[in-house]
Amino acid sequence: MAIGSTKEYADSDGLYGRVNTQYAEFDGITLESGVFLGPLTVAYETYGTLSPELDNAVLILHALSGDAHAAGIDANGRLGWWDAMIGPGKGIDTDKYFVISSNCLGGCKGTTGPCSINLGTEKPFGRSFPLITMGDMVNVQGLLVQHLGIEKLHNVVGGSMGGMQALEWAVRHPDQVRSAVVIAATARLSPQGIAFNWVGRNAIYSDPARVCPDTEAGHVYQKMGRGLAVARMIGHITYLSEETMEAKFGRKLRLKDIDGYSYSLGENGMEGGEFEVESYLQHQGSSFMRRFDEDSYIIITKAIDYFDLEGPRGDLVTAFENISAKMLILSFNSDWLYPTSMSLTMVRALQAAKKHVSFVELDLPYGHDSFLANAGIPSLTRIIRGFLNSVR
Amino acid sequence: MAIGSTKEYADSDGLYGRVNTQYAEFDGITLESGVFLGPLTVAYETYGTLSPELDNAVLILHALSGDAHAAGIDANGRLGWWDAMIGPGKGIDTDKYFVISSNCLGGCKGTTGPCSINLGTEKPFGRSFPLITMGDMVNVQGLLVQHLGIEKLHNVVGGSMGGMQALEWAVRHPDQVRSAVVIAATARLSPQGIAFNWVGRNAIYSDPARVCPDTEAGHVYQKMGRGLAVARMIGHITYLSEETMEAKFGRKLRLKDIDGYSYSLGENGMEGGEFEVESYLQHQGSSFMRRFDEDSYIIITKAIDYFDLEGPRGDLVTAFENISAKMLILSFNSDWLYPTSMSLTMVRALQAAKKHVSFVELDLPYGHDSFLANAGIPSLTRIIRGFLNSVR
Repeated sequence: MAIGSTKEYADSDGLYGRVNTQYAEFDGITLESGVFLGPLTVAYETYGTLSPELDNAVLILHALSGDAHAAGIDANGRLGWWDAMIGPGKGIDTDKYFVISSNCLGGCKGTTGPCSINLGTEKPFGRSFPLITMGDMVNVQGLLVQHLGIEKLHNVVGGSMGGMQALEWAVRHPDQVRSAVVIAATARLSPQGIAFNWVGRNAIYSDPARVCPDTEAGHVYQKMGRGLAVARMIGHITYLSEETMEAKFGRKLRLKDIDGYSYSLGENGMEGGEFEVESYLQHQGSSFMRRFDEDSYIIITKAIDYFDLEGPRGDLVTAFENISAKMLILSFNSDWLYPTSMSLTMVRALQAAKKHVSFVELDLPYGHDSFLANAGIPSLTRIIRGFLNSVR
Repeated sequence: MAIGSTKEYADSDGLYGRVNTQYAEFDGITLESGVFLGPLTVAYETYGTLSPELDNAVLILHALSGDAHAAGIDANGRLGWWDAMIGPGKGIDTDKYFVISSNCLGGCKGTTGPCSINLGTEKPFGRSFPLITMGDMVNVQGLLVQHLGIEKLHNVVGGSMGGMQALEWAVRHPDQVRSAVVIAATARLSPQGIAFNWVGRNAIYSDPARVCPDTEAGHVYQKMGRGLAVARMIGHITYLSEETMEAKFGRKLRLKDIDGYSYSLGENGMEGGEFEVESYLQHQGSSFMRRFDEDSYIIITKAIDYFDLEGPRGDLVTAFENISAKMLILSFNSDWLYPTSMSLTMVRALQAAKKHVSFVELDLPYGHDSFLANAGIPSLTRIIRGFLNSVR
């Protein structure tokens, strides 16, 4: 569930240089639900050069709020969300690899999603967008990979929701992936994860816009609502470790000019945030509601809820039976959303299924979001570079 | 942060019999903020008989959503929220002790709070209710105890927010408490705790009623809003352990008659909850919004946020310096909201301050709410009964 404001975290330098997001068009796909969805647009970027043997492609898989812009500097001067990892000489070395990054199906950053126009009604899909799965997202990425003329990916790599997609790639398309890096992920969303997503969506549903959809202002409210901000703030609490929260904020107050508490909820009882941690979350919430679409949030979190490699296949060893990719599973000891125990469950099942699996638990204090944290990049770089080089 | 629907948890039998909530009136108090608040009403119940020596009083301190009705059966046939612990022969034995339970200041169950009429405006306080602290709640309990003619309490006992109040009693009124039982609590709310409360209040603020306060229906919406339900659902996730969620719900679907997922958000995109855990939370949210006031929720969570014995006094050993009560600190190994480490911080500070302190970590899987869980009552009974008897 990567955040987009990488400046805060990652040690990015835009070394890859200027990049433009490109768009590929497809007729459509039949979703896991049985519904046909098309035509489809996929927003994507590439970095590096495809080898003549077409054997050096690495597919980057973003988390909940990410986009196709993973590296370099875009037309707006914005750094890619994983620029610290992708570029010449970096962990995912663009001098060696042809790196592909696309916005996921259901997203709001150029790929077909709830903001797209439904050709049937000539209006945006909104919440009538069909429900999708991680598998559907991966199938659409498959169309893009095929479109680029690539038969087999050297690697697929992603954290959080991106890690779930890396797993789907390895399980669903064993012939098309040579290796997969699964970071801070799980083989099935836990009931606690479902619960957090559910509450976030309910915060969106209790947003004013949904109560007064007929008013002129309704649509504006809908896209600027506080519900999405609340959902994002809930998410942010789960992405950070208790330790980071203590170190970064503790019980520090935002207003330094008054001694002690304000004993006030502020103007008209609309709180502005008295503690620094409140102010931080408020900032995360409001910047998110400016850059993300609430209906995309609903569709994507629902796809995450549906993610369960184990259930439909009986058990995880069976689920992993067809995997032929070399697997690298990474977890963070401070991640309480998808803790190391969830990674170990996957590792044990892969071992039982006699697959090639490596596992590293990184000692980083930044919680679930550690794969985006500046201080984590050197370790990630070392481990992922070594792993990519070891795959032939 | 006790839940009121004890039937689901505790093994209650209403053995204490019929009880009536009583009301005491006071001129008022000067709050920690410096604001004078009065007149005050305090809703309370008592169980058992006060000894001629006036030395057998035990004060029960409820959690966020609790009320004065802790034991027996009220006029509506409702069992007390801790009936399993309080009654003849129970852990807090009404054959031996005179048990007092009151609704906290700022509450919405009979004690003065945001629903009370502000005599200045002749309207309910709502969000203009002054901000209060745990210390203010305890001072108001002090008025009640004095009103009942009791100079020294045999014991004060509470879980979660009630545990914070037990600590305040021991620290602020050392001459008035012989012993204190602090269950699943902390000496200061962590930034993560502040963050969860903040997001809950923001869910309330994004509630429709606040957007259209002029409409006739506005007020009704306000008190029936989904924002409070969202806040409560966030709370519930933090009260349950991951383990309990797995055991109780797992990834089970609510609708058994369809095979697999529904791939639908339901009518008009207003989700009804596809997974059992969603349906459970929805039930908790809606029943809470029928029985609790959102402005009380705001005032009380803000008081919890303000709770910090350490900060204003420099360190915890200094904060505990004046304590004369025998202290019992209890934690649950599955509580991730106020984990055992927080209890141990208190225990170490009490030891350093050379106070009489006992500590038990209970091995119960029900998370923060374990003190209300049926299966936890036998252990709690044994430990608290022994402790109460040991105090003379």
